Amino acid sequence: MAPVGPRSGDAIFSSIDRVNAELFTLTYGAIVRQLLTDLEEVEEVNKQLDQMGYNIGIRLIDEFLAKSGVSRCVDFKETAEMIAKVGFKMFLGVTASVSSWDADGTCCSIILEDNPLVDFVELPDTCQGLYYCNVLSGVIRGALEMVSMKTEVTWTRDVLRGDDAYELQVKLLKQVAEEYPYKDDE
Amino acid sequence: MAPVGPRSGDAIFSSIDRVNAELFTLTYGAIVRQLLTDLEEVEEVNKQLDQMGYNIGIRLIDEFLAKSGVSRCVDFKETAEMIAKVGFKMFLGVTASVSSWDADGTCCSIILEDNPLVDFVELPDTCQGLYYCNVLSGVIRGALEMVSMKTEVTWTRDVLRGDDAYELQVKLLKQVAEEYPYKDDE
Repeated sequence: MAPVGPRSGDAIFSSIDRVNAELFTLTYGAIVRQLLTDLEEVEEVNKQLDQMGYNIGIRLIDEFLAKSGVSRCVDFKETAEMIAKVGFKMFLGVTASVSSWDADGTCCSIILEDNPLVDFVELPDTCQGLYYCNVLSGVIRGALEMVSMKTEVTWTRDVLRGDDAYELQVKLLKQVAEEYPYKDDE
Repeated sequence: MAPVGPRSGDAIFSSIDRVNAELFTLTYGAIVRQLLTDLEEVEEVNKQLDQMGYNIGIRLIDEFLAKSGVSRCVDFKETAEMIAKVGFKMFLGVTASVSSWDADGTCCSIILEDNPLVDFVELPDTCQGLYYCNVLSGVIRGALEMVSMKTEVTWTRDVLRGDDAYELQVKLLKQVAEEYPYKDDE
């Protein structure tokens, strides 16, 4: 009998409901454009995209846990590998790799080999401070918070800003006890 | 040799890049929530969703024509069938049907059998006037305008508003000559 365990990102990705990637890309582009129009300040747009990602992440983690067969990871290192190898594949159909671990294993980089969010995107000069893909950092932050890890997720390389890759730095701030979804006095 | 012609929506859908449907659903939900926060008036949100859809549709038509092998349809009837049978399948992975044609073949209904945009969605009482899926009507309007058909697309049934199905009425206003993307004096 085959051992029971986490399913590969490929296997999960091929078995779940999906939509056309270009529709997703254009829809995401429409959000960013909308936010740029409504909020004007690029810095505010970065914040909103991150917040939107956070709201998505705190729900997407349920789908991840339900479909991937992954149970609690033993440590942050394993968690980062799961995000890169299973999470990105499962949701965006792309592969990512983990590198640049610090000495105590609480900070690493996730490097995207492909990024469907940015197809057809070029930033005009007025948007040079924009982190176009900031929704992704928010998703990771939100999802990890639901499994008791407070993190800081920042872009360290961004092709749209002239770098040679998409690289997210994920830093574990603290591992917290399971939290109730409501405050006690609510 | 097999005849050359339009490919089925299923065949196209299985051969193109896709992303996880739940990620798309949650991302779309995040847009709607964002617009409701920023714009406050539900009627304004309906307009913005339609406009975002229009902007998506005028680009998505290129992908549709490139991947589907569909060439110019002979009339509006064939066009409506293509949207329902190939377009919805190709982009959202769902099937739709066409019905309720008027006598002169310029107005019909497209009925969705499934609608991935609305998974997990319930409208609060404050949003009863919202056409949550208005992006779809905009997409159809935008895409058809790029193939020289000016249309009016409106929701006639919406499960989120208590109806038993999702039904879009598509009305051909006029068929226009090919338009240049720029005005002559620009």
